[in-house]
Amino acid sequence: MLILCRQDLTDHEREEILAAARNAGFEPFFAHSGRIILHGPGDAAPLSDLPGILSIEPLPDRPVLAKEPGNAVVRVNDVEIGGGAFTVVAGPCAVEEKARLIDLAHAAKSAGCDLLRGGAYKPRTSPYSFRGLRAVGLEYLRAASDATGLPVVTEILDAQDVELFTDTADMIQIGTRNMMNYELLVAVGRAGKPVLLKRGMGSTIDELVHAAEYLLLEGAPGVVLCERGIRTHEPSTRNTLDLAAIPVLKGVASLPVIVDPSHATGRRDLVAAMGRAAAGAGADGVMLEIHDDPDCALCDGPQAIHPENLSALVDNMRKISALAAEAEDLL
Amino acid sequence: MLILCRQDLTDHEREEILAAARNAGFEPFFAHSGRIILHGPGDAAPLSDLPGILSIEPLPDRPVLAKEPGNAVVRVNDVEIGGGAFTVVAGPCAVEEKARLIDLAHAAKSAGCDLLRGGAYKPRTSPYSFRGLRAVGLEYLRAASDATGLPVVTEILDAQDVELFTDTADMIQIGTRNMMNYELLVAVGRAGKPVLLKRGMGSTIDELVHAAEYLLLEGAPGVVLCERGIRTHEPSTRNTLDLAAIPVLKGVASLPVIVDPSHATGRRDLVAAMGRAAAGAGADGVMLEIHDDPDCALCDGPQAIHPENLSALVDNMRKISALAAEAEDLL
Amino acid sequence: MLILCRQDLTDHEREEILAAARNAGFEPFFAHSGRIILHGPGDAAPLSDLPGILSIEPLPDRPVLAKEPGNAVVRVNDVEIGGGAFTVVAGPCAVEEKARLIDLAHAAKSAGCDLLRGGAYKPRTSPYSFRGLRAVGLEYLRAASDATGLPVVTEILDAQDVELFTDTADMIQIGTRNMMNYELLVAVGRAGKPVLLKRGMGSTIDELVHAAEYLLLEGAPGVVLCERGIRTHEPSTRNTLDLAAIPVLKGVASLPVIVDPSHATGRRDLVAAMGRAAAGAGADGVMLEIHDDPDCALCDGPQAIHPENLSALVDNMRKISALAAEAEDLL
Amino acid sequence: MLILCRQDLTDHEREEILAAARNAGFEPFFAHSGRIILHGPGDAAPLSDLPGILSIEPLPDRPVLAKEPGNAVVRVNDVEIGGGAFTVVAGPCAVEEKARLIDLAHAAKSAGCDLLRGGAYKPRTSPYSFRGLRAVGLEYLRAASDATGLPVVTEILDAQDVELFTDTADMIQIGTRNMMNYELLVAVGRAGKPVLLKRGMGSTIDELVHAAEYLLLEGAPGVVLCERGIRTHEPSTRNTLDLAAIPVLKGVASLPVIVDPSHATGRRDLVAAMGRAAAGAGADGVMLEIHDDPDCALCDGPQAIHPENLSALVDNMRKISALAAEAEDLL
Repeated sequence: MLILCRQDLTDHEREEILAAARNAGFEPFFAHSGRIILHGPGDAAPLSDLPGILSIEPLPDRPVLAKEPGNAVVRVNDVEIGGGAFTVVAGPCAVEEKARLIDLAHAAKSAGCDLLRGGAYKPRTSPYSFRGLRAVGLEYLRAASDATGLPVVTEILDAQDVELFTDTADMIQIGTRNMMNYELLVAVGRAGKPVLLKRGMGSTIDELVHAAEYLLLEGAPGVVLCERGIRTHEPSTRNTLDLAAIPVLKGVASLPVIVDPSHATGRRDLVAAMGRAAAGAGADGVMLEIHDDPDCALCDGPQAIHPENLSALVDNMRKISALAAEAEDLL
Repeated sequence: MLILCRQDLTDHEREEILAAARNAGFEPFFAHSGRIILHGPGDAAPLSDLPGILSIEPLPDRPVLAKEPGNAVVRVNDVEIGGGAFTVVAGPCAVEEKARLIDLAHAAKSAGCDLLRGGAYKPRTSPYSFRGLRAVGLEYLRAASDATGLPVVTEILDAQDVELFTDTADMIQIGTRNMMNYELLVAVGRAGKPVLLKRGMGSTIDELVHAAEYLLLEGAPGVVLCERGIRTHEPSTRNTLDLAAIPVLKGVASLPVIVDPSHATGRRDLVAAMGRAAAGAGADGVMLEIHDDPDCALCDGPQAIHPENLSALVDNMRKISALAAEAEDLL
Repeated sequence: MLILCRQDLTDHEREEILAAARNAGFEPFFAHSGRIILHGPGDAAPLSDLPGILSIEPLPDRPVLAKEPGNAVVRVNDVEIGGGAFTVVAGPCAVEEKARLIDLAHAAKSAGCDLLRGGAYKPRTSPYSFRGLRAVGLEYLRAASDATGLPVVTEILDAQDVELFTDTADMIQIGTRNMMNYELLVAVGRAGKPVLLKRGMGSTIDELVHAAEYLLLEGAPGVVLCERGIRTHEPSTRNTLDLAAIPVLKGVASLPVIVDPSHATGRRDLVAAMGRAAAGAGADGVMLEIHDDPDCALCDGPQAIHPENLSALVDNMRKISALAAEAEDLL
Repeated sequence: MLILCRQDLTDHEREEILAAARNAGFEPFFAHSGRIILHGPGDAAPLSDLPGILSIEPLPDRPVLAKEPGNAVVRVNDVEIGGGAFTVVAGPCAVEEKARLIDLAHAAKSAGCDLLRGGAYKPRTSPYSFRGLRAVGLEYLRAASDATGLPVVTEILDAQDVELFTDTADMIQIGTRNMMNYELLVAVGRAGKPVLLKRGMGSTIDELVHAAEYLLLEGAPGVVLCERGIRTHEPSTRNTLDLAAIPVLKGVASLPVIVDPSHATGRRDLVAAMGRAAAGAGADGVMLEIHDDPDCALCDGPQAIHPENLSALVDNMRKISALAAEAEDLL
C-alpha cells in the first residue's frame, strides 16, 4: 500500500505512522516526498485514522510522479527546461585548469548556451585513468558559474558527496553508469536540487522513467532525462543514439528530455548532425562537450567540438526545434 | 587483383580475358560494371596486354564505387534523390485492393510525395501470414504509378523475379532481410534499375556500404541507402533507429541516404517525430507508410499514418531539411 | 484458413481446390507438404466437400510442424541427428584444393565425426573477397564424401541452385545471412533433402523456429537448427553464442539443435570450451571448422582448429553430452 | 606514473610521498594496495629517493593485478574458489523469513553447496518494489551461515554500508547494476573481504576485468568474477548468457569465474541446462537461486529452483566440470 502524508508532517507523526505500520505487519519505507511505501502481509485499514495521513491506496505499478504535468518544467536558477525553449548545456568533459574552464564558460555563454557542464568527479573504466579534480573541480565550476551567470550541472558518483554537491552545483547529474545505483538516486533525490538523469547505456526507456520516479519520490524539485546512446552491435559510433526515446518518453512521462550527442557518438564530426536530429525529434535541449583544444583534452577529446562554431550551431538547432514544435501534433 | 575493362568490352574479349586469367592460375569473376576480380596465387602481369583491359590493380580493401562522387545523385525517372531536395517515398506497407492503392497514390502525390512504395512480395516471419499479391500486386503498383506519375519502388525477394521487376518497377528495393543475400544483390545489380537498399536489422553500417558496392559493381545505375532501425535490447520500439548512421554514411560513402521511420519504430505515434529527426540529421529523404484505414491494413497497420496530415508533415520535414543543410558544415 | 490435403493429392485435385478457393474470395497458397493456406475475406465452408481435402481449420498462430514429435530425429544417409547421439559436423570453412579437402575429410572421419562440412558458395561481406569454388567446390565435396563415407552438408545461397545442390549434397545448409530469405526456404524445402538451418545473427529464437516451419511446410524431410551466435555489444568475440537457445528451442520445437562454436566466437582458442558448453547445454551436436594450416586458410582461418586434437575433443564432448542427458530432467 | 610502495608504508611516509608528488606537478591518488597513481604534467624522477618507494613505472594500459597468478584462487573462510573444485553458491534471491532462510541454507548444505547467497539489500527497478530486509536481512544471513557453516555472500548497494557488510558477510557481492559504480568498488576493495563481482548487463568483458582491477588495487584479498548475462535483442530469456566470457576471461585475467544461470535466464526451466553448460565451458562454479515455494517468493520466483533436485544437479555439474578440466588444453 502507499500512504500519502500531509506535506507538513511532523517527525513525531511520521514515527507514529511507521511504528503503527510495523505493528500491522508491514515493512514501511518513508520517502521524502511524504509517501510511505508498505510491503508485507499486513492490513492497512487500522492506519487510516492516524494524524498526518491523507490517503492510503494500492502501490502504483507504473511511475506516477514522472507523469505528473507539474513536473514538465524544471527550473535551474533562472533557466527553465521543458517550457518550450531549446536548452543548451555546454562545457568540457572534465574540468581541467580553472582559467580554461572560465574561458569555455564565457564561450558557452556568448554562444547562447544556458547551462555549464563539466566533470569534476569522473567515472573511468580503468582505475589508472585520471578520476577528475574532484572537490577542487567543483570549486572551479562554481567560479566559472559565478563569472558567467550560467548555472552549473555536474556529475555525482557517491551518496557521501551529496552535501558537497548541494552546496556547489545548481543541478546534480546522475551519469549513465549510476542510473541503476538506486541508493544514490535516493540520496540525490533528498538533496533539494534539480537533477539531470542520464539513461544507462544498457538500460531501457522504462527503467529510465522508473529511475526518475525514485528521485521524485524523494522530493527532487525537478528531473530532466537525458538520452545519451545505448550499447548495440554497431561499432562505428561509441553508442547508438536512440532518438525515438524522445517521443516515447513524452508519451509515458511528462519530464523534459535532452540529448547528449557527444557521448552518444564519441565523434566530433557527428555531434552537429545529431544535435539537429535531436531538435527535430522534439528534444527539450542538448548537452554538448566543447573544448578549445580538443586534441589535448584529458578526457574524451575526440568528441568535443570547438567553441568557434557553437553560436551558429545553437542558433540552427533552435530554429529546427521551433519548426518541429509547430508540427508536433501531426501523426 | 582487379582488372578494369573497357566499357564497350565485347563478349569475345571478355571470354579471352577470363580464359587467360584461369590459365594464369586465378579464379576470375566478371562483374557487369566491366571489372574482373581475380583470386588465387597467379601472376597477373601477362594479362596486361590483352585487348579490352584498361588497368590491373590490387583489389580494394574498402568499397570504392560507393564512394565515387558520381553516385551521389540517383535518378528514378524524373525524380532526383540526393541532389539537395528532401525526397518523400510514401505508400502502403502491402499492396491490397487496386482502387485503394490508386487512391493512396493520389493522396501521396497531392501531399507532395515523390515516389510511391508498396509491397507486392512480402517477406513474412510466419509461413502462415499473407505473402502479398505478388505479380498481381506489381500490376496494381504499375497502374497506380501510371495514374499519378509517381515512380514506384517495390521490394524483390528472389533473383528469379528480376526480369518481372525490371519490367514493372521504376526502382527495385532490397529489404532488410535480404541485405546480405548477395546473390540477389548481384542479380538486381545487373537489372539496370536504380536500387533502394535497406540496412539489415542485424547489420553494421560498414556491411551496408559493402552491400551497395555489390550492386554498383554489377552496374546498378544508382543506389539509395535506407536506415530502418537495428535490433537492440530496447523493447518500446520495434527496432532502434540509428540516425547517426546518416552522417556516418555521408563520411564513408557518397550515396544518398533515406530513413524509414515506419518500420524503424513500428509505431504510428513516433513516425512524424522520427521523420523530422531524420531531416535534422541530414537525410536525403524518408519513406513513410500511409494507409487510409490503418487499423484494417493487412500488414503493419499500427505503423501506418493517415494521409490527411501528410502534406503538413512533408512540408515541415522539408523546412527542417533545408535548415539542416544550411548548417551542415558546422562542427 | 488452412486446408490439409491427402498425401497423394493429384495435380488435378490441387488445381480444382485452388480454383475453388479463388472463387470463394481467397488468395490460396499451396505448400508442398500438402497444405493450402487461405488468406482473404472468403468463406471456406463450400470447399470442404472437394476431393482431396482432409480438413479445413484456422491458420495456426505458432509453428506446428516444428513441434511435431516425428521431426525430432533427422536422418542424413546413415547418420541420425537428434536421436540421442552427439553429432559432430566438421570440415573447412571454404572448400579449397580437392586433395586437402579429402585429407581433412579423412581426418574428420578418423576423429569420429559424422558429417563433412565445407563452403563451396561463400557469402562474403565484400564483393572483392573470394566467393568460393562454387560448382567445382560441390564436386570436390562429393568426392570427399564418397572417399570417406561422411555425408556432406554445404551452404546454398540462391534458389536457382537448388537442383545442383540436390544432386550433390546430402544435406543443404541455409546460412545465417539467409535465414530470413523466405523464397530460398521455400525452394530448399521442396528439394526433398534434410536441411541445416542456421540462426540469423540478428534473429530471435522465435524467428528461427518460424523459418524451420517454412521448410517443413514445403516438405523438407528433416530440419536441424543451428545456434551460431548473435550480434551484441560485446566485442571480444565475433558474435555472442546464445546457448540458452538450446533448452529454449527444446521447449518450443521438437527439432534437433546443434551449435557452431567456430563462427560464434571467431576464435580458435574458444572453440573447444564452447563445444563442451554446448554439450553440457543439451545440444544434439556441434559443427566445427578444421584446417590443417589455419593461418593460410582462404576464409576464417583464425577460428579453425587443427585436426590433431579433434579426436580427443570429440570424445570429451560426447562424454559431457551423455552426462548432461542423464540429468536433463532436473529443474 | 605508478609508484609502488613498501607493504608496511607508514602514514607519514605516505603523506610525504603524496606531498612531494603534488609539488612535482602531479595529481596523486593513493590506492590501498600500496600503489600511488600519478596524473599530470610533472616529472617523477625527484620522487624516486623518497623512503617507502620501491619503484616508479609508467601507468599500465591494461589490468595487471587481475592477471597475477596469485589471484587465481580466492578463499572465503574454508572454501576455495578457483582451485579446481566446482563451487556452488545457492540461496534465495531475497532474504525473507529467518526460519525459511535457515531451512534453505540447510538444504543447500546437504545438497553439497559451498556458499550461501541471499539478498538483504535489493536493487529494484521500481521504487515501489520491496527493497529487502536490509540490516535485518544481514542478521538472518549471519544466523543461517552460523547454523550451517556455509560462508555467506550478499550484495552491497552503497559505500556507506561497507562496515556493516564487513562485520556480517564473508564475501561481499557487487551486483550487475553497480559494476561501474567505481566509488563503491573502491570502498569495497578497502574492506578486506573477498568480493564477488558481477558483470554489468550492458558491460563488456574488458570493463569487467577493469572493475576487478579497481578492487584489487584497493587491496581486496580476492575477486571472483560472475557472468550473469547481457542485454540483447533476444526476448525469450531475461538476458543472454555469454558463456564464451569464461574462456575469454581465463585468457585476459587469472581470476576465478562463476556463472549465474538464474538471473541470466530468468527462467527456472533453463537453469539446470545452463549450469551444466557453464561447467562444460570451464567455469569455476555457479550461483543458483533456490526457493522452497518459488511461486510465492517475494522476488524473482520464476527463476528459483526447488531444493529437492539440487543435490543431483550439483553432482551432475561437478562431473561435467571434471570432464571439461581433463580436456581444457585441447584446441
